[in-house]
Amino acid sequence: MIPPDHPRYRSLVVRERMAACARQGIVSWEGLTAHGRGEAFDYLIGERTTDSARVAERTAAAMLLAARHPVISINGNTAALAAPEIAALQRACGAIVEVNLFHRTEERVRQIEALLRDAGVAVFSGEAEQLLPLSHDRAWCRREGMYAADLVLVPLEDGDRCEALVRMGKKVIAIDLNPLSRTARTATLTVVDELTRALPAIANACTALSVSERKHLIDSLDNHYLLQEAIVEMTTRLAHALD
Amino acid sequence: MIPPDHPRYRSLVVRERMAACARQGIVSWEGLTAHGRGEAFDYLIGERTTDSARVAERTAAAMLLAARHPVISINGNTAALAAPEIAALQRACGAIVEVNLFHRTEERVRQIEALLRDAGVAVFSGEAEQLLPLSHDRAWCRREGMYAADLVLVPLEDGDRCEALVRMGKKVIAIDLNPLSRTARTATLTVVDELTRALPAIANACTALSVSERKHLIDSLDNHYLLQEAIVEMTTRLAHALD
Repeated sequence: MIPPDHPRYRSLVVRERMAACARQGIVSWEGLTAHGRGEAFDYLIGERTTDSARVAERTAAAMLLAARHPVISINGNTAALAAPEIAALQRACGAIVEVNLFHRTEERVRQIEALLRDAGVAVFSGEAEQLLPLSHDRAWCRREGMYAADLVLVPLEDGDRCEALVRMGKKVIAIDLNPLSRTARTATLTVVDELTRALPAIANACTALSVSERKHLIDSLDNHYLLQEAIVEMTTRLAHALD
Repeated sequence: MIPPDHPRYRSLVVRERMAACARQGIVSWEGLTAHGRGEAFDYLIGERTTDSARVAERTAAAMLLAARHPVISINGNTAALAAPEIAALQRACGAIVEVNLFHRTEERVRQIEALLRDAGVAVFSGEAEQLLPLSHDRAWCRREGMYAADLVLVPLEDGDRCEALVRMGKKVIAIDLNPLSRTARTATLTVVDELTRALPAIANACTALSVSERKHLIDSLDNHYLLQEAIVEMTTRLAHALD
């Protein structure tokens, strides 16, 4: 047991949860390494939601509410880190939640769907088909789910899938701590924030924003500016780190 | 099989090796996450040896050759990533190589020692005692090994052990891609470079440096300057990343 007053309590609890999910097969080996990359970038933004990330989160909420058929795409790391937060966001915005894995097996899909349902998520399940223009496992999705979506929220996604979804004409919201990643640079909107901070912030904005605020956020979206602001945060913190 | 002409061949081969070693129990769950953190920082220095890292590697060689009783401390990640490079460095500088684990079990120690021996390392083994001023598993080392060392090379080490070794009056050389980590800031000398680039560079410098060059490098060691230079590399790359 980690004592709650430990200075790194939150980070240590998250690591324990990730390790437990890796043992069960919910998180892949590659997922653990990807989590480490995220930790490094989170450290560089000060392990807090920056002002520009706050704007991105409010914009994400506005886009989710404006979408005709929004879908939240879930992988192993997202389910392990934030199943309750996904349930709360689904309640706030009404999006479909669908599991889409890079390292896909029927057993992993079943385990992740069970974990999500236990946390209160209404999971869109059933027969998947190879519908996305991607090789191998990543092509699988559901015709009435991600394939039909006009907007997809992809937390912790790989660059290939993000590009494929954008090429299919969909709006894509990425949650990615690395502002230089292909996903971050390809997405319509990138939230550079840690998942369990970002999802509640988006859910809160869904209920708090007025219609005119939502319209203003969507009209003024400039993802290049948001990424540049995240980079400025990182360089500023790095430059003063040894002071 | 990953095709050798793949643009990310080296990185993908390393990840496969890490996953294989994780399956065998040589690399811990935490080790995979730590590897991911390293990947993120390596990306920020351009996945190459910087000029300041080259100076640090030459200084590391000079310090290893000047030491009375140098010891190289090996953990699971180091063995998985660089067993042949450890063997080559041992041949070049004559250091003792000793396994010291954060998540210690007799089985893991045995596996890692076998992996090192298969790669040609002369492993200093035998009875360990709880000799370091650290809690739990990390206190274990050998009386004639790390405990007696005047200099310890700790690749990919945790901050607690680095601090404990420095407090015991030992010189510590760290190889750590994060110039802000407690290890990086506590060590006598920090090499901010990726392990499989750093170890061969140190081994080469062991044979290439003249006696007067070695003396000059040791006399002019300024670890704060080396860390600051690594940070300047990262901020410069980040600042131009979206150009």
